[in-house]
Amino acid sequence: MSQQTKILLEEHEMPRRWYNIVPDLPEPPPPPLHPGTHQPAVAEDFAALFPKALIAQEMSQERYIDIPDQILEVYRLWRPSPLFRAHRLEKLLDTPAKIYYKYEGVSPAGSHKPNTAVPQVFYNAQEGIRKLTTETGAGQWGSSLAFACAQFGLECEIWQVAASYRAKPYRRTMMEVWGGKVHPSPSQVTAYGRELLAQDPQHPGSLGIAISEAVMEAVEDPQTRYALGSVLNHVLLHQTIIGEEALLQLAKVGDTPDVLVGCTGGGSNFGGLAFPFLREKLKGNMDPVIRCVEPTACPTLTKGQYRYDFGDTAGLTPLMKMHTLGHAFIPEPIHAGGLRYHGMAPLVSHIYALGLVEAIAIPQTECFAGALQFARAEGIVPAPEPTHAIAAAVREALACKESGEEKTILTALCGHGHLDLGSYEKYLAGEMVDLDLADEQIEAAMQSVPEISST
Amino acid sequence: MSQQTKILLEEHEMPRRWYNIVPDLPEPPPPPLHPGTHQPAVAEDFAALFPKALIAQEMSQERYIDIPDQILEVYRLWRPSPLFRAHRLEKLLDTPAKIYYKYEGVSPAGSHKPNTAVPQVFYNAQEGIRKLTTETGAGQWGSSLAFACAQFGLECEIWQVAASYRAKPYRRTMMEVWGGKVHPSPSQVTAYGRELLAQDPQHPGSLGIAISEAVMEAVEDPQTRYALGSVLNHVLLHQTIIGEEALLQLAKVGDTPDVLVGCTGGGSNFGGLAFPFLREKLKGNMDPVIRCVEPTACPTLTKGQYRYDFGDTAGLTPLMKMHTLGHAFIPEPIHAGGLRYHGMAPLVSHIYALGLVEAIAIPQTECFAGALQFARAEGIVPAPEPTHAIAAAVREALACKESGEEKTILTALCGHGHLDLGSYEKYLAGEMVDLDLADEQIEAAMQSVPEISST
Repeated sequence: MSQQTKILLEEHEMPRRWYNIVPDLPEPPPPPLHPGTHQPAVAEDFAALFPKALIAQEMSQERYIDIPDQILEVYRLWRPSPLFRAHRLEKLLDTPAKIYYKYEGVSPAGSHKPNTAVPQVFYNAQEGIRKLTTETGAGQWGSSLAFACAQFGLECEIWQVAASYRAKPYRRTMMEVWGGKVHPSPSQVTAYGRELLAQDPQHPGSLGIAISEAVMEAVEDPQTRYALGSVLNHVLLHQTIIGEEALLQLAKVGDTPDVLVGCTGGGSNFGGLAFPFLREKLKGNMDPVIRCVEPTACPTLTKGQYRYDFGDTAGLTPLMKMHTLGHAFIPEPIHAGGLRYHGMAPLVSHIYALGLVEAIAIPQTECFAGALQFARAEGIVPAPEPTHAIAAAVREALACKESGEEKTILTALCGHGHLDLGSYEKYLAGEMVDLDLADEQIEAAMQSVPEISST
Repeated sequence: MSQQTKILLEEHEMPRRWYNIVPDLPEPPPPPLHPGTHQPAVAEDFAALFPKALIAQEMSQERYIDIPDQILEVYRLWRPSPLFRAHRLEKLLDTPAKIYYKYEGVSPAGSHKPNTAVPQVFYNAQEGIRKLTTETGAGQWGSSLAFACAQFGLECEIWQVAASYRAKPYRRTMMEVWGGKVHPSPSQVTAYGRELLAQDPQHPGSLGIAISEAVMEAVEDPQTRYALGSVLNHVLLHQTIIGEEALLQLAKVGDTPDVLVGCTGGGSNFGGLAFPFLREKLKGNMDPVIRCVEPTACPTLTKGQYRYDFGDTAGLTPLMKMHTLGHAFIPEPIHAGGLRYHGMAPLVSHIYALGLVEAIAIPQTECFAGALQFARAEGIVPAPEPTHAIAAAVREALACKESGEEKTILTALCGHGHLDLGSYEKYLAGEMVDLDLADEQIEAAMQSVPEISST
């Protein structure tokens, strides 16, 4: 118990470039397609939504991309983030395994999301954009973008799913503290929102509707752009600083992972931790099992299909080849709001299809049981999303107890749960149930996936 | 802007002893008195409430007390805490001053309180105690004690002021995540609580009532003790790890403070940061101005008197000589719940009476205005209590802008505001008002201070 608990890096040790896994993959990922022509999308297809620098990163074939100094300066407010050795959890589980977790809850917004919010705002500011719009569900992404906009003096307008806007006022207030303007979605601001409110003044909203409103608002003004918090290549790129730091930190204690587990919603937290380790695996420097963990209520990888589909519910975005449950799929209301997405990042889907990573689904009561053990041993109360990663790490550690193997397990604790304690309240009250999807539900939702003749 | 933002210490650099300022003071602090005899209290007078080791620390004349390894191991879950240089706030204020803040929000409970919760639970566990009781208002202390009890396997029973229990369910859930048992106070558990509920089933409670219930429950069972989160000498002792770390961190960048400002409620956060610096000042190694900052709605130091008074509203505790507004004083409902205490730590009161530190009071709207500037520049959303310290630092930095002085300002950001965003909501909605106390109100409350003939 007297060993080191936190493995830290000094600011001057922080990685100065992001890692793009694309050129290192055995096969290139399938390109996005124009939704009308079904031909590979080109940069101009994204120009109304994103600044040129981010579109270039989205399509880049460069292995490394330098992080501008202005971004590194903001990263220093919380980065490098700590890597913890979970001595006390290991003791509680009575396992011979070593458990490490990379903790992203030290960021001002409390999750990994600012890792990409900051560069997204920076590149927009560089190109003279004055305002960014986005959607948010649980609120992690909206608050991260509001924080980043405050750093570079941009306006930030956020459409928050109405049900969440009403149920989680603290998240909204956090966005407003950083200067963000928050609308419940559907809103009176857009024609689409007004139409939905006319049908139902108490409309609960959905992520798909909120995306549509944010996109519609962005394309109307040449000095406004839209920002997305996961799924896209450039978002995963920015998150690779997590894995690059973890590599340096494990090297400091002379360890390499035998198993890496991360939770997957859109895929950015998982990709951020896993891609640098996958690079080392492909180079033959280490040989970890790399495993995605998703909720049984939204089993994109384990029960979805690898098909071209839309990124949003309304079908406005380019078509992306990804594991999907169908863009019309509305996930059950599980507590891990950040994992409720019908699709999976195209890059994560591609490496899964190539067999480079595994995937499992875990029901939420097992996740919260693991989170409670974790919180009582390690102190930190995890956000609902990484409870999936923790539950997977606990499974692995208990398997090691059975087998006697001294495996090294690495996972990502991508955020704290301070603004999600309502989920824990439900769990502690015994009111949380597991939601298993019937095959017919998935089959029905898959009907919304378009038939693309060229694939 | 390219300078270092966070000054870190490695775990092996963490101080291994607490600092007791008593032997270094030019005059010894007046002793606590037995409430019945008005004679100096002896160890046995505290034995029903606290374990022997803590009573010994309370009365210790030793300059340094070693921190046991088992406590250091838990401290390593978040300590050493970072010292930040507020480059971005300095730029926003356009000040030549340097602003440093020591951030305690990295602890699992989100404030400095676990620094003393952990040793308090440890020493109780050492002496075979199985359960601790305590009270909590805003919830920072109750959650810290629940966390610490989970670490050492003790039961934890918490009386939370009923109004706060109902208004802030997230804090209650956090305590329950760590295994704490939480009662609204007044409660059905104690005779005193039942009596109050019989009078008013919707009784909002008060900190004084909650203390009484927790104390009554503790004294009834020989394996149960009570724990207090501020005011007492041993609590301030444990908090000195904050200042000891800050001294090491400033030495790393070759700086010494010209001004040190800290918020004062019970006095433990202030004492924790200030006492090690006061030691260096008394030794002639540096000469900082050291300033307490309190709310205008509870101006213990700036408008109270230095008299013997009770620590609790019911008048059950030993008499302590301290700055007080009268133990019957009920502070207005300001948002900084942690600063709503009628008295001030005897040690802080004593050094203030000796002229070793200054004190000012700041109204809450100025505090939240400063906190908003801070959050937008530095990212972290402060708890309501340290907004007072931030507002004082901003005042000082703006004075430097006027005078052109390049002063070094050090302050303590003793916690984050994730569970206090309701206060920010009120401020942003323009619904927060400043509460200034009329002299007659203070005069009336002071009537409750007992006349002690021996002083």
